[in-house]
Amino acid sequence: MPAENNVELICVGNELLIGKTLNTNAHWLAKRITSLGLKVRRIIVVGDDLDEIASAVRETVKRKPCFIIVTGGLGPTFDDKTLEGVALGLGRKLEENEEAIGMIKAKYERYVAEGRMREYMMTPHRMKMGRLPEGAKPLPNPVGTAPGVLLKHEGIRMVMLPGVPEEMKAIFDESVAPMMRKLAGDLTFYEVSLEVRGLPESELAPLLDEVMHDNPYVYIKSHPKRAEKVSHLELHFSTTSDDSNVAHQRIGRAVIQISEMIKEKGGIVRPIK
Amino acid sequence: MPAENNVELICVGNELLIGKTLNTNAHWLAKRITSLGLKVRRIIVVGDDLDEIASAVRETVKRKPCFIIVTGGLGPTFDDKTLEGVALGLGRKLEENEEAIGMIKAKYERYVAEGRMREYMMTPHRMKMGRLPEGAKPLPNPVGTAPGVLLKHEGIRMVMLPGVPEEMKAIFDESVAPMMRKLAGDLTFYEVSLEVRGLPESELAPLLDEVMHDNPYVYIKSHPKRAEKVSHLELHFSTTSDDSNVAHQRIGRAVIQISEMIKEKGGIVRPIK
Repeated sequence: MPAENNVELICVGNELLIGKTLNTNAHWLAKRITSLGLKVRRIIVVGDDLDEIASAVRETVKRKPCFIIVTGGLGPTFDDKTLEGVALGLGRKLEENEEAIGMIKAKYERYVAEGRMREYMMTPHRMKMGRLPEGAKPLPNPVGTAPGVLLKHEGIRMVMLPGVPEEMKAIFDESVAPMMRKLAGDLTFYEVSLEVRGLPESELAPLLDEVMHDNPYVYIKSHPKRAEKVSHLELHFSTTSDDSNVAHQRIGRAVIQISEMIKEKGGIVRPIK
Repeated sequence: MPAENNVELICVGNELLIGKTLNTNAHWLAKRITSLGLKVRRIIVVGDDLDEIASAVRETVKRKPCFIIVTGGLGPTFDDKTLEGVALGLGRKLEENEEAIGMIKAKYERYVAEGRMREYMMTPHRMKMGRLPEGAKPLPNPVGTAPGVLLKHEGIRMVMLPGVPEEMKAIFDESVAPMMRKLAGDLTFYEVSLEVRGLPESELAPLLDEVMHDNPYVYIKSHPKRAEKVSHLELHFSTTSDDSNVAHQRIGRAVIQISEMIKEKGGIVRPIK
């Protein structure tokens, strides 16, 4: 059985590995999935290469998350290799999926009807977007042409999304978020941030140890904002609960405790936002 | 023997997995390493968890890149677990490193001399930054307190850098870039981008196939900028060579060929920047 609420992301694209593109997709997905009450355990970035995609898929499947989200590489060009790589990784064949081909044709027909294209033919490059791993189901793309793809493998839900941010977000919100929300039940993620000045991280460290010990359900992390010498950092408190009162109480208690300790040491604390 | 010019990145930090922080460190490193002539093969993001860090290290070591760069988790707080995780992954012990402890003490002495701190003691939290995996060497941190860490393992150079961007960049530029430049020799990465309008990606795809086939040393990738219907995309051409004339000729030839094909189909092309 897959781990209850673990999600893993695989981002495909050479542009991410040469530093041409900042991975805002992973950031958006991580934030969104966390706010839905699930936990992102790992993010892997690989290039547009069949073996790299397949091996990332195989390794991720072994960790048995409840969801694997793969972004990028669903389009019509030669370097869009995600579906072939996923099929290779899972030992499945690619096959023409009638439903997906229907979605793609309907898009082009609309483009023609709206005068954006003169005519269209289902060229091999366009058919490619409708060739899915065996047993997969297409997810409608409200913004672009290539459908998203859903498939279940050993109890894991695998979702393939395009790399274009608008298309990725639209398919996620329409088809993936509802599945995740259902799985998470009432679990929700809560967070609060504090700004601390006038106390270096190394002096704060033992105080945090104590507060963490006293507040086992609150995760606290310190983020030095610049080099330690200027003594400016951010503390981030988070917890997951199915009861918002409980969550607010938990975080509130930890925030009050650390704030008093910091003031006692001569530091300054204020809430962020 | 490690693969000639492959580099892998491991980014450690819960803030990356909950979508609190955008991974600009991976972006900066990928761009910088690519421009030095080496190739980033994979990026892994894991949380502040010993077993997660150790397993990411073990898996990455198996692929035998020439460099592994680990960022984040070198500071004094309880959630800074990178060195312990790396040691666990490699089966090495952590030990007090005299050189590292000397660097840390010198920093605090300077902070006191400059009046930024009244006094300092080598508390357990501060000593922690000087406990390195056996056989490791500290790298000076020109900006903050925690030293970077270099160690060789099965011919792989492993470098641990702080997560604070200013510190990460300063240690990389001072200590890591020169090692990479030496390894890459005269190999340099060249790139050119074109903007294409008026031709959907699915019509461009067969043209790209032809140009890729005729220009085997040039990697070409298309990036749809919005949904396909608005027909706006970016083409990115890149090559790696030790001769800048050869590199410019290669890319120039591919750019001219695709530009002519696009114009023939009624599309508009212009160089970016």
